[in-house]
Amino acid sequence: MSKGIFITVEGGEGAGKTSVLDKIEIQLESEGYEVVRTREPGGIRIAEQIRTVILDISHTEMDSRTEALLYAAARRQHLVEKVIPALKEGKIVLCDRFLDSSLAYQGHARGIGFEEVKSINEFAIEGHLPDLTLFFDVDPKTGLTRIQKDDEREVNRLDQEKLDFHERVREGYFKVMDVYPDRITIINANQTIEDVYQDAKKEIQRFMGRKFSD
Amino acid sequence: MSKGIFITVEGGEGAGKTSVLDKIEIQLESEGYEVVRTREPGGIRIAEQIRTVILDISHTEMDSRTEALLYAAARRQHLVEKVIPALKEGKIVLCDRFLDSSLAYQGHARGIGFEEVKSINEFAIEGHLPDLTLFFDVDPKTGLTRIQKDDEREVNRLDQEKLDFHERVREGYFKVMDVYPDRITIINANQTIEDVYQDAKKEIQRFMGRKFSD
Repeated sequence: MSKGIFITVEGGEGAGKTSVLDKIEIQLESEGYEVVRTREPGGIRIAEQIRTVILDISHTEMDSRTEALLYAAARRQHLVEKVIPALKEGKIVLCDRFLDSSLAYQGHARGIGFEEVKSINEFAIEGHLPDLTLFFDVDPKTGLTRIQKDDEREVNRLDQEKLDFHERVREGYFKVMDVYPDRITIINANQTIEDVYQDAKKEIQRFMGRKFSD
Repeated sequence: MSKGIFITVEGGEGAGKTSVLDKIEIQLESEGYEVVRTREPGGIRIAEQIRTVILDISHTEMDSRTEALLYAAARRQHLVEKVIPALKEGKIVLCDRFLDSSLAYQGHARGIGFEEVKSINEFAIEGHLPDLTLFFDVDPKTGLTRIQKDDEREVNRLDQEKLDFHERVREGYFKVMDVYPDRITIINANQTIEDVYQDAKKEIQRFMGRKFSD
């Protein structure tokens, strides 16, 4: 295989992305694939610095368009330094959130405008769309309840947003799926982590045209 | 006056923008105008942090599209927090560099693409174009020689760029003037600072439809 596979996982807070990605990563590696597990900013120095600016809890004065541009900048650097080189080496890149998060969060939920956020992100990604995106669809109440139970998670600005914001995020993801119906597959993330994983695994199997071992 | 005037000054390195803006500011204030003298990031906390990331001399790995997005983000925050409020209060805003710098530097000189950089900046400024822009046109050799003589200026990544880059920047500014012929006026910046100031003053007088006192 000369070119890798770019898989992204999307969804609201508490959708179980991290736990399921842990399992998918182990599964794919046991199959002999070289996997790069990442999320923006992915340890890329410049992108980490940008993320620090975005998530600074004291930045209540941050304009939502500034934020969208910063996400696009961090995305660009992570893509160029980490994702593209791994794909060129034929690896499977598993990325926790990508383009669609900006479309759902900034474009739709924050009301900046879907098309406008899409436009700055197209500038950032230059056509490097994921090959497959799994949208973990969780009921916002369920998702936020899961987060509140988890003491280890860092409280950041997004976690402080209210429930209605997360309902708009969910609407945003459905809008994203209208734009990219072939790329994105919906996974019911209200189930147990194990069931979410099984569904995700099936979709990846289907995409790769071969079976994982059990 | 219920709405202020937004004036930007543009040009390559060593065009004398700072010295001339000093004189213009004094002149306008002596005329009784309330002047806000600024440049991006303009003391805006978020924008200052972004600028730190952009100008970090160790960031040789920074992609040019990342840089363009960061400039647009800093521009947005500075515009929203400082420029627009001052204009609403009827002040004259004198801004050292704005949109056109990104078009000339990133769009043209770095070869990202003029239209694409214009597009992300339109996202950032949402139609808030300057009322008047003075382009200080200096021969790149003259400009860079002036900078090298000045020991007090901080050496940053841009100062390290080569002469041919600054020639492309100059070409970029001419391209910008093709797009915005009414907004932008060219000033010969190869002259002495005093002569550049006199020319700039005349253009501002013409724009404001009234004379500065001598």
